[in-house]
Amino acid sequence: MRIKLTVSYDGTEFCGWQVQPNGISVQQTLEEGIEKVSGERVIITGSGRTDAGVHAVGQVAHFDTQSSIPADRWAKALNTVLPPSVKVLDSGEIDCDFNARKSAKKKTYKYSFYKANTELPLKERFAVKLEKPVDIKLMNRAAEIFVGEHDFKCFNASGGGAKSTVRKIFAINIKDSAEDLIVSVSGNGFLYKMVRSLVGVLISVGEGKTTLADCENMLLSGKKGVKAKTLPAKGLCLFSVEYGN
Amino acid sequence: MRIKLTVSYDGTEFCGWQVQPNGISVQQTLEEGIEKVSGERVIITGSGRTDAGVHAVGQVAHFDTQSSIPADRWAKALNTVLPPSVKVLDSGEIDCDFNARKSAKKKTYKYSFYKANTELPLKERFAVKLEKPVDIKLMNRAAEIFVGEHDFKCFNASGGGAKSTVRKIFAINIKDSAEDLIVSVSGNGFLYKMVRSLVGVLISVGEGKTTLADCENMLLSGKKGVKAKTLPAKGLCLFSVEYGN
Repeated sequence: MRIKLTVSYDGTEFCGWQVQPNGISVQQTLEEGIEKVSGERVIITGSGRTDAGVHAVGQVAHFDTQSSIPADRWAKALNTVLPPSVKVLDSGEIDCDFNARKSAKKKTYKYSFYKANTELPLKERFAVKLEKPVDIKLMNRAAEIFVGEHDFKCFNASGGGAKSTVRKIFAINIKDSAEDLIVSVSGNGFLYKMVRSLVGVLISVGEGKTTLADCENMLLSGKKGVKAKTLPAKGLCLFSVEYGN
Repeated sequence: MRIKLTVSYDGTEFCGWQVQPNGISVQQTLEEGIEKVSGERVIITGSGRTDAGVHAVGQVAHFDTQSSIPADRWAKALNTVLPPSVKVLDSGEIDCDFNARKSAKKKTYKYSFYKANTELPLKERFAVKLEKPVDIKLMNRAAEIFVGEHDFKCFNASGGGAKSTVRKIFAINIKDSAEDLIVSVSGNGFLYKMVRSLVGVLISVGEGKTTLADCENMLLSGKKGVKAKTLPAKGLCLFSVEYGN
């Protein structure tokens, strides 16, 4: 039986989703949890690898089991053995042609900033302090440049190893409030560190350091340049993965 | 010169505000920070001792210094040496008859719950999962019983050592939303673990376990009884301390 899980995690202490020689991964933590409750050693497949320090509220994964545990009980069973930093929000049976990675149609990430004069201990774990005021209108215009299907080679960090650098961004949404700024990016897939790099460019545009012409040039030249930085992992959260037609 | 600080901290890793033989306290962390930037060994006085695991966004403290660091620069200077879990939001000179503890007129604490079917890793650090649906109207009626000046002996945990158990609660505010429930309690002072015990009673009323008559009896008898539990420290946050007339 193939089981689909929806998983949330606080990525702070993990070396990322994928099993690594150094550090504990979310994948390993889930696989060890499955072994504890069913005695089975399985390999679990996530919708994608989140980097070290990146969080999730809606990561999706699948695995195959011979266990007699009912599909909808896996969430509860796993949560009794998982640490507070990883919890399964939902579990259910899914067709064997479903693959959490290959079947994914749309992923949404959110990058969170907060506005304050100094670092705030209660926000620092899941967000990044906005260094300067930003022009939201200008950020929205820059976002429009990146929405659509493009070759995002300019955002392809070394170590990614993707065959093609063409991706489709469905939408970029900027939610601005008195205390926070949240940038949501949804697309059919993302290159290694692409979201943190893209949101870094949008902030740089908002600060007046990067121009809209610079953004257009990034897509044309395949080079991001050095004006905008790749943002820290802790502000990033995998919000949802969708599989609908 | 007497300096007044407004301090925020993530209490998770601290043994509380006050210097303790076991574990690192917020007070000690600040005193070590002051020594690092000015070379002076001082004793810092907080508005009150927060327990191990309790957070703050608006703790107030004072200390006396001979340093030439301008009063309004202490915040920035200390933040360069403090860990991410403690930051000074504001600093300034204050009259020498000001005492962060004795001059405090009003303290406000907030206790945060979240609503979900399972523990949420991204909320667990600063809030507690609400176990059952609660009746907010009933909780508000119970809150009215406790607002005012009363002998709160029923909420006086062992180890508190307060001379008088009479306190005045100015207001209890319950903010209910789809995802969260936040109970704010403001008063002229609180006994050891009093807010966590009081909010525990309000939740127990909301769940239908404790009656309004039980609440009235607590104040009359000085005994809380066993129906309601003292809530975990991590959901509690010292929101503000006020010194106005």
